[in-house]
Amino acid sequence: MSEGERVQDLGEQEILKRLYAFCPIDVVGDDAALLSLAPDHFLVVTTDMLVDQVHFSDRTTHPADVGWRAAAANLSDLAAMGATPLGITVSLGLPGHLPIAWVEELYRGLVGCLNQYNTTIVGGDVCRSTLTTVSITAFGQVHPTRTLKRANAKPGDAILVTGVHGASRAGLELLLHPEKGHHVDQTTRDRFIRAHQRPCPRLDVIPVLWEEMRNFAPVREEAGFAPVPEWKIAAMDSSDGLADAVVQICRASGVGAVLERDRLPIPDGLMNWVSEAEAIDWVLYGGEDFELVLCLPQPIAEAMVNRLGAGATILGKITDFSPSPPTVILNDPTGTYPSTRLTLEKGFQHF
Amino acid sequence: MSEGERVQDLGEQEILKRLYAFCPIDVVGDDAALLSLAPDHFLVVTTDMLVDQVHFSDRTTHPADVGWRAAAANLSDLAAMGATPLGITVSLGLPGHLPIAWVEELYRGLVGCLNQYNTTIVGGDVCRSTLTTVSITAFGQVHPTRTLKRANAKPGDAILVTGVHGASRAGLELLLHPEKGHHVDQTTRDRFIRAHQRPCPRLDVIPVLWEEMRNFAPVREEAGFAPVPEWKIAAMDSSDGLADAVVQICRASGVGAVLERDRLPIPDGLMNWVSEAEAIDWVLYGGEDFELVLCLPQPIAEAMVNRLGAGATILGKITDFSPSPPTVILNDPTGTYPSTRLTLEKGFQHF
Repeated sequence: MSEGERVQDLGEQEILKRLYAFCPIDVVGDDAALLSLAPDHFLVVTTDMLVDQVHFSDRTTHPADVGWRAAAANLSDLAAMGATPLGITVSLGLPGHLPIAWVEELYRGLVGCLNQYNTTIVGGDVCRSTLTTVSITAFGQVHPTRTLKRANAKPGDAILVTGVHGASRAGLELLLHPEKGHHVDQTTRDRFIRAHQRPCPRLDVIPVLWEEMRNFAPVREEAGFAPVPEWKIAAMDSSDGLADAVVQICRASGVGAVLERDRLPIPDGLMNWVSEAEAIDWVLYGGEDFELVLCLPQPIAEAMVNRLGAGATILGKITDFSPSPPTVILNDPTGTYPSTRLTLEKGFQHF
Repeated sequence: MSEGERVQDLGEQEILKRLYAFCPIDVVGDDAALLSLAPDHFLVVTTDMLVDQVHFSDRTTHPADVGWRAAAANLSDLAAMGATPLGITVSLGLPGHLPIAWVEELYRGLVGCLNQYNTTIVGGDVCRSTLTTVSITAFGQVHPTRTLKRANAKPGDAILVTGVHGASRAGLELLLHPEKGHHVDQTTRDRFIRAHQRPCPRLDVIPVLWEEMRNFAPVREEAGFAPVPEWKIAAMDSSDGLADAVVQICRASGVGAVLERDRLPIPDGLMNWVSEAEAIDWVLYGGEDFELVLCLPQPIAEAMVNRLGAGATILGKITDFSPSPPTVILNDPTGTYPSTRLTLEKGFQHF
């Protein structure tokens, strides 16, 4: 992507004009954007910064994929709070030599993802930088009684995980080292690469959750009191890995967890290609699958599995109150492997 | 600032822990922050990115000043919409060699400014970057009937400007070229430098505006209908310069404007130091004064001047519908200088 107009050929106003084409016309153009919330709802806010050569590079990531993934990551954080998206803002730091087509492709990817969830870009900022930098802030709304929090896990809760894990990590491996997956069939290869490039935040899970909650507390729900307080639900997205999500929930809730090794949601086709040990490593620590980890009463978890089918797994149970760092055990019910304790060490981000 | 711990000595979690000390404890720590809005209010959102060597440098800007100015710029955008702040998020791109003390000073500056306006940092993100980058998103709330917009200016409106302009530009000059202002007395020098380093967004003007509006429409206000529709008020902050604000309002509203040269709000002491031509250039194009430009009915503008005293000036009038680019005339009522047409050309940001 080296041809055509570059950022330095256009002024800030012209760049903004090009980018306005991707935004609802009635929202952008003032000092700030105006959005309306549903009555009695909380505002939910999350933010992420992506930096060239750290979070993306031309080698593995088309700008449309950078945009899609950035939107997905932020919407996934909203899903983890139980929120419905209202919009995002996008701030860009752009080097002068960057083709304007790169920026437009980035926006195409952002809008492509947002459109799937009926939301839009409502504002932003463009500035000069020596390093391509993308900063996204996403807004959502949630009714106070339907807020999901990391600190809500209780001993006895089932740990429900949506989707499969490790697929994004597998896709990245195929992009970085195409030769390593030479015996992976094309369909499987495409599925992994798509999981990496076009992850889908699980906003679809939230209404299913509340439908199932309502089935278990119909009267209170109709009286406007649902969910009952003892059914507060813990959630986090698995953007930093499945193990990280479970450990963070346990840490915030002051509890431990036992996960069953044979229930780990390994993607189809992964074990034909990498060893079991590597597959499990990617499932637990790969990250960027943008699925949800929910801790909730066992009967509701079972109802969710019935509704979502192969798209959800009960991975284990929350255990008694636990010191920090919390005790999160990976147990093998078949007795083949010893129990291991999961830590965040693999998730530690050096600067 | 080269001693002590560096960003690379700490993990992401430890950096976040240090920064949590600057945030309200009940808001941070989940995937997203939860904020509540007043009933029937709109959410107002604005965002800004600041980049090392473009928006700040160690030569002219202490990190606490970078923080203060970043917070002030975003709060100023909220003021321009008539909004009350709810909080900000801060995303940081940090090089490993950066002293952690720099980051903590940045936060001290941010919080120092936010505290003046009863608001806080509610969330953020920290990531690795080769270039120090700060991205702020601010949230506010406004009642729909009290929303200020660029497009609301009407022919006959008075153009009211708060504060003085060019003071920030003068302060920057004194920081960049201390020798140039050798005959500026210390008090004046400090005032200009403070205007540059510690600008104050004019959120204080908004309640005064609505008090004065109420005086002109008391009955409708009490019935909950204020302001009357024909009194929609146009506003913009002067972050990109006074001329830019007037031209942008005119462009958005499809009107022109006449400004009176003898009413330009030149800071005290500036003309003792620079020529009249340079002073007027800084007033019109200097930028970063973070004052408000309001277009509103003449009697309300006069009442505002009575309330704000020397802190506000009626600069001129909105004229008839005007093609784009709008006709914005700087007129000299004394007849000494010819009328000139103001353009945005000086405000054009090359990349």
